[in-house]
Amino acid sequence: MSLLSFEDVLAARDRIAPFARRTPVLTCSTIDAACGGRVAFKCENFQRTGSFKFRGATNAVGSLSSEERARGVYAHSSGNHAQALALAAKLHGIPAHVVMPEDSSPVKVEATRGYGARVAFCPPTDEGRREVAARVGEETGGVFVHPHDDPRVIAGQGTASCELIEEVGDLDLILVPVGGGGLLSGTLVAAKHLLPGVRVVGCEPAGANDAFRSLEAGRRITEFVPVTIADGLRTPLGENTFEILRALVDEIVVVPEGEILPSMRFVWERMKILVEPSSAVAVAPLLSGRVGASGRRVGVIVSGGNVDLRSAFEGES
Amino acid sequence: MSLLSFEDVLAARDRIAPFARRTPVLTCSTIDAACGGRVAFKCENFQRTGSFKFRGATNAVGSLSSEERARGVYAHSSGNHAQALALAAKLHGIPAHVVMPEDSSPVKVEATRGYGARVAFCPPTDEGRREVAARVGEETGGVFVHPHDDPRVIAGQGTASCELIEEVGDLDLILVPVGGGGLLSGTLVAAKHLLPGVRVVGCEPAGANDAFRSLEAGRRITEFVPVTIADGLRTPLGENTFEILRALVDEIVVVPEGEILPSMRFVWERMKILVEPSSAVAVAPLLSGRVGASGRRVGVIVSGGNVDLRSAFEGES
Repeated sequence: MSLLSFEDVLAARDRIAPFARRTPVLTCSTIDAACGGRVAFKCENFQRTGSFKFRGATNAVGSLSSEERARGVYAHSSGNHAQALALAAKLHGIPAHVVMPEDSSPVKVEATRGYGARVAFCPPTDEGRREVAARVGEETGGVFVHPHDDPRVIAGQGTASCELIEEVGDLDLILVPVGGGGLLSGTLVAAKHLLPGVRVVGCEPAGANDAFRSLEAGRRITEFVPVTIADGLRTPLGENTFEILRALVDEIVVVPEGEILPSMRFVWERMKILVEPSSAVAVAPLLSGRVGASGRRVGVIVSGGNVDLRSAFEGES
Repeated sequence: MSLLSFEDVLAARDRIAPFARRTPVLTCSTIDAACGGRVAFKCENFQRTGSFKFRGATNAVGSLSSEERARGVYAHSSGNHAQALALAAKLHGIPAHVVMPEDSSPVKVEATRGYGARVAFCPPTDEGRREVAARVGEETGGVFVHPHDDPRVIAGQGTASCELIEEVGDLDLILVPVGGGGLLSGTLVAAKHLLPGVRVVGCEPAGANDAFRSLEAGRRITEFVPVTIADGLRTPLGENTFEILRALVDEIVVVPEGEILPSMRFVWERMKILVEPSSAVAVAPLLSGRVGASGRRVGVIVSGGNVDLRSAFEGES
């Protein structure tokens, strides 16, 4: 893997240590009983800004030269990467610009601004986003930080599974949600080095199963309209993440859309933690039996907990 | 305090150690910033059966003589004590009977049965409950375990603050929700022994503020109709808990009903953990500034996470 080595993950670990939270690992006897295995949940929903994205963004920002720092960073994101990059930049004392679709949720725009980033709005299309991002890049001279295809970002995401394996020891199987593939790629590079026999499975929602289809076709499929409740997993694989998955992933499991919210609810009710639909995609195969976990030691990377609670509190005065 | 000493809490600790979970202590930088203190949350929402009640029930069951064990235990409860006692009895291999109001939520009835208890229904009145409980007691010959006034239960609840203090060290202030007063009493006995200078504050919803009024009146007020969203805090103080509070508590803070759900939502969104409305009652005074936390080290006992999620998932297929 020339793009990225385990040493890059180790370097990321040192780089993000002063900033990122070492998130807890939880267990749930009900889920163990349901799947017949012993499952350890690495809870990145407790990470700063509410998702694993803070690891990659912090590693990218921390990797900049002093000349680059002066120019700042920019990105496009309507979701967790926006907040993660904003806070990472703030903690390093450098400017950040984030391009967000003009129909982004006001809550996310406010959160991104709250972390000190400047927000530029774009039309909610690929073309509009590219145009506005290009303009922001020209105007600010900032360094672009891609949400999942930047090797510094991928190395940062790999630190979550390092911590998990350090805490629980040997694992037979690791389940990771896959959207753009940054978290899965980082997990593959780290876990396959630390535990050469581990099976790493990407979990993808049926309504955005481009990773499954891309690996089957042997080429990256990017032209599709995602229709999934798992809003963090709508993006296609990047060029780099596709190459890493092609080389290292054991399997992509496609999760029916109808299993995602019930799995999320199960985790809320039984584990008493808030996880977002994207995270539930990596739990669903344990509850449905779609991956064999019986008698196995399983790790799940719980990617984040940024969920819109408005409907839950609609009756609130 | 003749009812209960710190030694009883220590004995409870050993007794429940093989069964209860040592729950995590979490922090939240947003809440620290909001109140100006440093707050440690002892997360009993992660306790088995989803609340601190498992500690007291397990200590009560574990304290039985072998002759008493053969007869089993019984209680009345529509809430967390029912499930806690059911599981505690199951883990000790003894029978449990729980009297529940016939309008109890089917989810809670199922959970109680799921832990192996027999459920007897009663009319949803004080008299009906007493009648059915008396009949169950006669028929089974079991040992009655009161949800909050049994000294074995109170001693068990005190173990949560022991663990908290052991983990975080010195504290200036501890906030605890108060309904029947079992958790607050146990906390008082344990914390005032371990940290003689600590201030322990009970937090009570405005719609069921009998502890506040009872302490003010110098006598236990039991005749009132609770109207509070905090369903775990509707019960009046018991005779024993009233005596312990009268001797040891520093203050009862009354929380306006309108602050409870927003505080609960704040915890869900910011800490990514599910807490029930009763737990939010001990967080609200930090957010409203009703207790001065600035510059102080604060502990909060997060009592439980058993919340009805139906409304949150109404749109679910």
